[in-house]
Amino acid sequence: MTERLTCARAVMRHHGLDALAVVPGSNLRYLAGLELQTRLRLTLMLVPLDGQPALVLPAMEQARAMAASPIDLRYYPWSDADGPDGALARAVNDAGLAGSTIGIEHTTMRVFELRALEQVAVEARFADATPLLAGMRAVKDAEELAAMREAVRVIEMTLHETLAQVRIGMLEREIAEIWDRAIRAHGCLPAFETTVASGPNGANPHHTSGDRALQDGDLVVFDGGAVYQGYVSDITRTCAVGRLADDMRQVYDLVLAANAAGRAAAGTPGATGESIDAAARRVIETGGYGPHFIHRTGHGIGLDIHEPPFIVAGNRVPLPAGTTFTVEPGIYLRGVCGVRIEDDVVITTNGAESLTTFPRELLSIGH
Amino acid sequence: MTERLTCARAVMRHHGLDALAVVPGSNLRYLAGLELQTRLRLTLMLVPLDGQPALVLPAMEQARAMAASPIDLRYYPWSDADGPDGALARAVNDAGLAGSTIGIEHTTMRVFELRALEQVAVEARFADATPLLAGMRAVKDAEELAAMREAVRVIEMTLHETLAQVRIGMLEREIAEIWDRAIRAHGCLPAFETTVASGPNGANPHHTSGDRALQDGDLVVFDGGAVYQGYVSDITRTCAVGRLADDMRQVYDLVLAANAAGRAAAGTPGATGESIDAAARRVIETGGYGPHFIHRTGHGIGLDIHEPPFIVAGNRVPLPAGTTFTVEPGIYLRGVCGVRIEDDVVITTNGAESLTTFPRELLSIGH
Repeated sequence: MTERLTCARAVMRHHGLDALAVVPGSNLRYLAGLELQTRLRLTLMLVPLDGQPALVLPAMEQARAMAASPIDLRYYPWSDADGPDGALARAVNDAGLAGSTIGIEHTTMRVFELRALEQVAVEARFADATPLLAGMRAVKDAEELAAMREAVRVIEMTLHETLAQVRIGMLEREIAEIWDRAIRAHGCLPAFETTVASGPNGANPHHTSGDRALQDGDLVVFDGGAVYQGYVSDITRTCAVGRLADDMRQVYDLVLAANAAGRAAAGTPGATGESIDAAARRVIETGGYGPHFIHRTGHGIGLDIHEPPFIVAGNRVPLPAGTTFTVEPGIYLRGVCGVRIEDDVVITTNGAESLTTFPRELLSIGH
Repeated sequence: MTERLTCARAVMRHHGLDALAVVPGSNLRYLAGLELQTRLRLTLMLVPLDGQPALVLPAMEQARAMAASPIDLRYYPWSDADGPDGALARAVNDAGLAGSTIGIEHTTMRVFELRALEQVAVEARFADATPLLAGMRAVKDAEELAAMREAVRVIEMTLHETLAQVRIGMLEREIAEIWDRAIRAHGCLPAFETTVASGPNGANPHHTSGDRALQDGDLVVFDGGAVYQGYVSDITRTCAVGRLADDMRQVYDLVLAANAAGRAAAGTPGATGESIDAAARRVIETGGYGPHFIHRTGHGIGLDIHEPPFIVAGNRVPLPAGTTFTVEPGIYLRGVCGVRIEDDVVITTNGAESLTTFPRELLSIGH
């Protein structure tokens, strides 16, 4: 973790930042090993280019933070009675941040945290440090990959267990709960709201599992993830209940081919978010369903379930070895069905590897 | 819900705001009935003083939003391929927001959303609308209170069920899982991470239930909440395993008296966050444990588990009838134990009512 701070400082120097201000969330976990849920109570780590990082935090969180973080931090606790402004001002002054350029997290920091900093860091400039931190986090080391492999193992094992229990007539949310419980039984937490979307509900890529009962002829989208040691997995498979209409089968095969094309493109030297997206999208467009593939092909995964790099047109930087992301093309037919097949992929030194290996051919369930 | 928009506009006018910009979260649920989890995909409702509100959102969320919201919204969808900037610019221009004063949510809006607005709303000024919206939300109507009463009913019933199953030697996290499952079995979701903190772990008010086994002589803090139709409950009770040391018993009785004093102060005409906090704190200070009551006495509850009004020194505005909040004094003895007793209270026209009625006298568990 100290190495991560060293690396962050090198990147800060390169980008002309005098300090980083990091609020609770994945970046604070990444840089300081701290998982703090302080909601509206101001909590903020200041990392100057040199010297000890500072942590402004509610006094009642200090003992927990000191026990949890491997980083040597200088603490600026504040009490509910006093409020955070004084502690923040002292931390900013001690770090000499007046007139400096401070990197902040545009995607995580809230306006009240920005305004608090603006008030005490006189004549400071603020710049978005999110891409800089995302770039560091996109490339996983061996330990991070090991955690992700375990998260993948648990989500695939529990998907097997869940599918084996599915019967015609069961409600989506009953099935989602079975999967959810299985994830917890294996010592993980669900990475997000476990989703079962059956029949026409599959046409909504962000459906909430509800009271619809599985019927003969349904396609059913299963989308779930597990968290292991802070790192996530994310898998989607689409299964058939009983006999499927021929056109649904064709849609399935098209998505299957698009998934394969996306994974193959990821393994090509110089692969980019754009090249992977284009490869998957081309298959679906050629098959005549282009307008029904309504989202990007994938997103980075790691400490967050959605993080850079995004697998989408415009992202033209080659993905370095160790980068982890999803490949998840889909076709959504309003009122009819949806199909999505999602894998978790890591770029390797000589290609790409799919961490998820759950069978991709159409599985028949419910009997 | 249309009434809420009307009310919001009256308050906006009073505060000199030309428009509100509302991002996904409790305020969007409150004003537009929309529960959107769009993470890093820009989503923003613009409410001008007059005319139709606008919703900028990912195209793939539009059908879901149209089905869910009772509000007549003008939609500005954007695709992953195009990005959000064009849609946001059109919405801002159509609403005529150049040079206007836009109310934003300092506690919810992230910097990337603010920067996106700043870029397209030429010469606009931004002001914090959080207090204005919080003021509206603090006072619950009959329907909201009914939902909170149901959330309270579920959390109290499941706490009873859970305590009946506790045995000496069980792990904290096993007990937390029992409670969690019971909440889900009653059709609710946990409002936050259900907490069981035993023995010395109770000294951390934000302990994460872990692998410690319950022992004879422990005090055990149970802190949980349920969500029903979006509204939360939040209760804490502290129980004894076997025979308790005399000084722990005294600490318990002190917190019990502080809880009663806080609730009584809430029922006094003109009660404020400060007066309730002072009443509870005085009991603990008089008992000699003032430095061990390390947090405010409570927080508002409703759509959020922590929302204004906060029950703390400095909050001197009388709480209007319909205001809901917690009263939760505690004493935390590092390395020894913690005690907290938390109720959910609503201000009524002639006093205050505790929505939570679970027994407050010390319960003995584990046998």
